Amino acid sequence: MILLNGKETADAIKLEIAAEVEAIVSKGGRRPHLAAILVGDDGASRTYVASKEKACSQVGFKSTVLRFPADITEQFLLEEITKLNVDADIDGFIVQLPLPKHINEQNVINAIDPSKDVDGFHPVNVGKLSLGEPTFISATPYGIITLLEHYNIETKGKHCVVLGRSNIVGRPIANLLSQKGAVGDCTVTMCHSRTKDIKSYTLQADIIIAAIGVPQFLKSDMVKEGAVVVDVGITRIPADNKNGFRLVGDVDFETVAPKCSYITPVPGGVGPMTIISLLKNTLRAARNRA
Amino acid sequence: MILLNGKETADAIKLEIAAEVEAIVSKGGRRPHLAAILVGDDGASRTYVASKEKACSQVGFKSTVLRFPADITEQFLLEEITKLNVDADIDGFIVQLPLPKHINEQNVINAIDPSKDVDGFHPVNVGKLSLGEPTFISATPYGIITLLEHYNIETKGKHCVVLGRSNIVGRPIANLLSQKGAVGDCTVTMCHSRTKDIKSYTLQADIIIAAIGVPQFLKSDMVKEGAVVVDVGITRIPADNKNGFRLVGDVDFETVAPKCSYITPVPGGVGPMTIISLLKNTLRAARNRA
Repeated sequence: MILLNGKETADAIKLEIAAEVEAIVSKGGRRPHLAAILVGDDGASRTYVASKEKACSQVGFKSTVLRFPADITEQFLLEEITKLNVDADIDGFIVQLPLPKHINEQNVINAIDPSKDVDGFHPVNVGKLSLGEPTFISATPYGIITLLEHYNIETKGKHCVVLGRSNIVGRPIANLLSQKGAVGDCTVTMCHSRTKDIKSYTLQADIIIAAIGVPQFLKSDMVKEGAVVVDVGITRIPADNKNGFRLVGDVDFETVAPKCSYITPVPGGVGPMTIISLLKNTLRAARNRA
Repeated sequence: MILLNGKETADAIKLEIAAEVEAIVSKGGRRPHLAAILVGDDGASRTYVASKEKACSQVGFKSTVLRFPADITEQFLLEEITKLNVDADIDGFIVQLPLPKHINEQNVINAIDPSKDVDGFHPVNVGKLSLGEPTFISATPYGIITLLEHYNIETKGKHCVVLGRSNIVGRPIANLLSQKGAVGDCTVTMCHSRTKDIKSYTLQADIIIAAIGVPQFLKSDMVKEGAVVVDVGITRIPADNKNGFRLVGDVDFETVAPKCSYITPVPGGVGPMTIISLLKNTLRAARNRA
């Protein structure tokens, strides 16, 4: 069993990005500039945005965070987005989700210029992904693809079972892995809350992407010997340690890992790969604009 | 075994659309207006466009066909599209594919105003479909969904195996059937040219969508008893009749049909449902604009 070490992989890619940024700057080019809009004071959102800022500084990107109180109007937010759309110094930006309930998230996403939509959430970019055209692939599926590629895991002709059909993980990763291409050409089965007898599908899988949002859902008796398991879940569960909790994924790691050829740990698997994907998209946006 | 009669179903829906058009007109509203651009003189394209014109007249739509020679430039075509985009009298339009090789089809599709893109090929509409938002669903997948709905075929929790991953059939139907909703909630497996042992998947399927483009590909020993089979293929094969050919689908109908609970014939199954879907999209576009 080999660990798919997202932390190490992300660190290696960070060095590559940093080197590319230095090369751009040394030739007189602009540093890539990522902006983030943060509305309200959700703790998790603050943490995510802080991690993104830190990652930007590690690779030499410029970063800007626009913070607004939770009671701004949707109209106000849309106007701020318009400003970022036309700001020649901004290569890409994200609006940290979730937004306060009185703001329609889809309206907000639709307002982002697709060429600056480094989260890949705009329908144009979702459509391009589905069509197999070059686009900004959203962070989690892009991170998974990059991790599989980094470890040279063969996907062609493999049966991949995706657990979960969310718009940010399950559906895009299913669309990506079933397409023609280097990390693709899988036969893909998408399972979800309405699937009967999920185990009958996972037992057939060469590759399992667990993104169902249920802690430790995937058990040892649901996985065939030699499978590749990618765990997208991350949940705090009570633990007898100084934090009072520990992080677990959608996979019952201790029992499943011994059966796997490759498996991602939680934490340190898919998680670190998501931020690196946002950096890659921002670099791409900056290159497109240069 | 029950035939999924697309011809009868389409005729019934045509009457509903015609009644709705008359209701609109009797209240002083405009007739829905569909335009089609036809470039060159491909025989099949001419036939398709003629069928669409005929269907429009049957339901009381206004229709316009713009015909251009095969040697027009891409720039010229893009300008014609811009005119249709801003023409207040046009509710929706299509550009009949394929286009001559010197014209980039994706550039052309991207130029269509998504609110008039009744073929549902623009990345925005493809993205909305993937996201589960209301949109123009392209004709073949929309026709399949409508046919399954018309016959009250239960899809929730069923295992649907889609053969083929094309952007106009396989991928959108897989995305639709795996989504939450009335005709949805399937566990979906997408098989394609790189799938190993396709039979091992089709034998598990409650519903098979055959869109692989290989005549009579699906044989009796690949289908379980009681399956629902939807045949999207249509190919001419030589036959000893006055035409010298007959039409067959991707399913070996004669041997597969006896095992099925429901099956589409070819012709008269999915085919007639596609044009009706274009009419439904055009009516929707007209309603959105009213």
